[in-house]
Amino acid sequence: MTIRILTEGELRSCVDIDREAMETVASGFRGLGEGRAVLPPILRLDVEDANGEMDVKTAYVPGLDSFALKVSTGFFDNHKLGLPSLSGMMTLISAHTGRVEAVLLDNGYLTDVRTALAGAIAADTLARRDAKVAGIFGTGLQARLQLRALALVRPIERALIWGRDPEKAAACAQEMAASLGIPVEACAEGSAVCAEADILVTTTPARSPILQAEWLRPGQHVTAMGSDAEGKNEVDPQALARAERLVVDRVSQCARLGELHYALEAGLVEETQAVELGDILVGKAEGRCSDEEITFCDLTGTGVQDTAIALFAHCRAQARGLGAAIEA
Amino acid sequence: MTIRILTEGELRSCVDIDREAMETVASGFRGLGEGRAVLPPILRLDVEDANGEMDVKTAYVPGLDSFALKVSTGFFDNHKLGLPSLSGMMTLISAHTGRVEAVLLDNGYLTDVRTALAGAIAADTLARRDAKVAGIFGTGLQARLQLRALALVRPIERALIWGRDPEKAAACAQEMAASLGIPVEACAEGSAVCAEADILVTTTPARSPILQAEWLRPGQHVTAMGSDAEGKNEVDPQALARAERLVVDRVSQCARLGELHYALEAGLVEETQAVELGDILVGKAEGRCSDEEITFCDLTGTGVQDTAIALFAHCRAQARGLGAAIEA
Repeated sequence: MTIRILTEGELRSCVDIDREAMETVASGFRGLGEGRAVLPPILRLDVEDANGEMDVKTAYVPGLDSFALKVSTGFFDNHKLGLPSLSGMMTLISAHTGRVEAVLLDNGYLTDVRTALAGAIAADTLARRDAKVAGIFGTGLQARLQLRALALVRPIERALIWGRDPEKAAACAQEMAASLGIPVEACAEGSAVCAEADILVTTTPARSPILQAEWLRPGQHVTAMGSDAEGKNEVDPQALARAERLVVDRVSQCARLGELHYALEAGLVEETQAVELGDILVGKAEGRCSDEEITFCDLTGTGVQDTAIALFAHCRAQARGLGAAIEA
Repeated sequence: MTIRILTEGELRSCVDIDREAMETVASGFRGLGEGRAVLPPILRLDVEDANGEMDVKTAYVPGLDSFALKVSTGFFDNHKLGLPSLSGMMTLISAHTGRVEAVLLDNGYLTDVRTALAGAIAADTLARRDAKVAGIFGTGLQARLQLRALALVRPIERALIWGRDPEKAAACAQEMAASLGIPVEACAEGSAVCAEADILVTTTPARSPILQAEWLRPGQHVTAMGSDAEGKNEVDPQALARAERLVVDRVSQCARLGELHYALEAGLVEETQAVELGDILVGKAEGRCSDEEITFCDLTGTGVQDTAIALFAHCRAQARGLGAAIEA
């Protein structure tokens, strides 16, 4: 049995934010929408002594030859050691035999990519066709990747960035302007971002809302992707109630870990109002119905994205002869 | 960051059933007993199309530098492809940084070893000091390994084996006699095994009892290790009620997946009667109190065993310079 071992460098050399990768992740969401995917609850381990946590996700999508088991770790004292907080890896397992096929030592890179691609899929599904101005909350890696991913699906001509730290926002704006070749401005107030953006993406680990409901304007689309754990909350729960279309990646997960949690808790929306992204992709549910609607998508990250990106990465790496082959 | 990749062959060459490995697994149980270990519920994925399943276990034991994430797969149509049903791997992750340290491509070997060692620990803790005759139910790999593991902790002079298939029982007896250098006999009836054995170990995937309560005699110790999933049931639930000392690896797990499940369901025992093996090891609970007691230990397999054996294997492999080092 040959097992392919791929490193972060090798994976970076063959997987990026592009339409083909996006299509693969979208097919994972369609698997969910068709009710075929098996998506167990997340396994979580807390390592309190080291201010650390591990999340393990998996999903089987019938029709695919393999499924991924994805480990994400967040050890939030790592900066003291000069290491990034987040890491992880994926294992690709045969859906026919249960044997390990590949180990993707990506240190979380594939998670970054599939998370950004879910943002692109949400915007492609829900934003107005003519959306041109992107508004990003946050100044970290996902702020950058989400903006790049939006540019895949809409003709983004301009972007606005807000961050708690104005210097980081300015640096992020400068970097993204150079990388995308469009004007990107840092805004001192989140309200200024909302006043002009057609698509808003929140990418922060905020624990109290940084995006207020009264800032929203008709026709906007919001993707909130920062909240993925109890206690995280980026968006004013009233914003979810204001949206004509409330979409989530997975109802059961968002009701516990996402923005939906707070809106439910405040009694502002009901769980039955939330529609899954995959259901819209397969035509089971409606997306945006007019240019005036506000659409809102709450993303917490699902195992189907991991299975999709791991298979995609393995396939590309194989085609290029990358990785070490271990006989095991 | 260097990640060590170890294959099944390399792991077999440095890890076996011995006292040092047993001591390591026992220290994992002591971590549980001291209430320090963090042991999340098992993540389970079913792949119905292929008659397959995946179980993922993990445990963090404070004081240990790493923790394991263990994947076990069972794909029960694999024999049609000439492959074993069971497989799996372990990943060793730093408890200080969350970074992957090693990938143990053991195809389930380390699980086999740590499972047998738990049997040895149970017998060492609960069986009479003068136990000499072992009785094994089942004729598979664990039947062999459990018998070898018993020989580590008690002066086993003779063994009896029962299996549903008399030919397999005879073959297993012959093989074990040669390997251990003691008389090993296949018995046509389970009752004949119970009539003579001091320690009984059930190692089957039975779904209805193969060991009857009325066969038990004062002073015997029983370890039931075959049941690890809903629907599996090797031992007459009355046997658990008959035992003066009812021990489990983990109450919450055994109440759902082990023999304890059926005894609780039948109202024959109460959950509070079950004592955890780790609690006995650290002196929080009493083990055997007299030579006349019947002791019973229900093992479903815990993440602390996986973390213990993975660390042990990595340490031995490192000392011998085994494995491929991947920079990732």
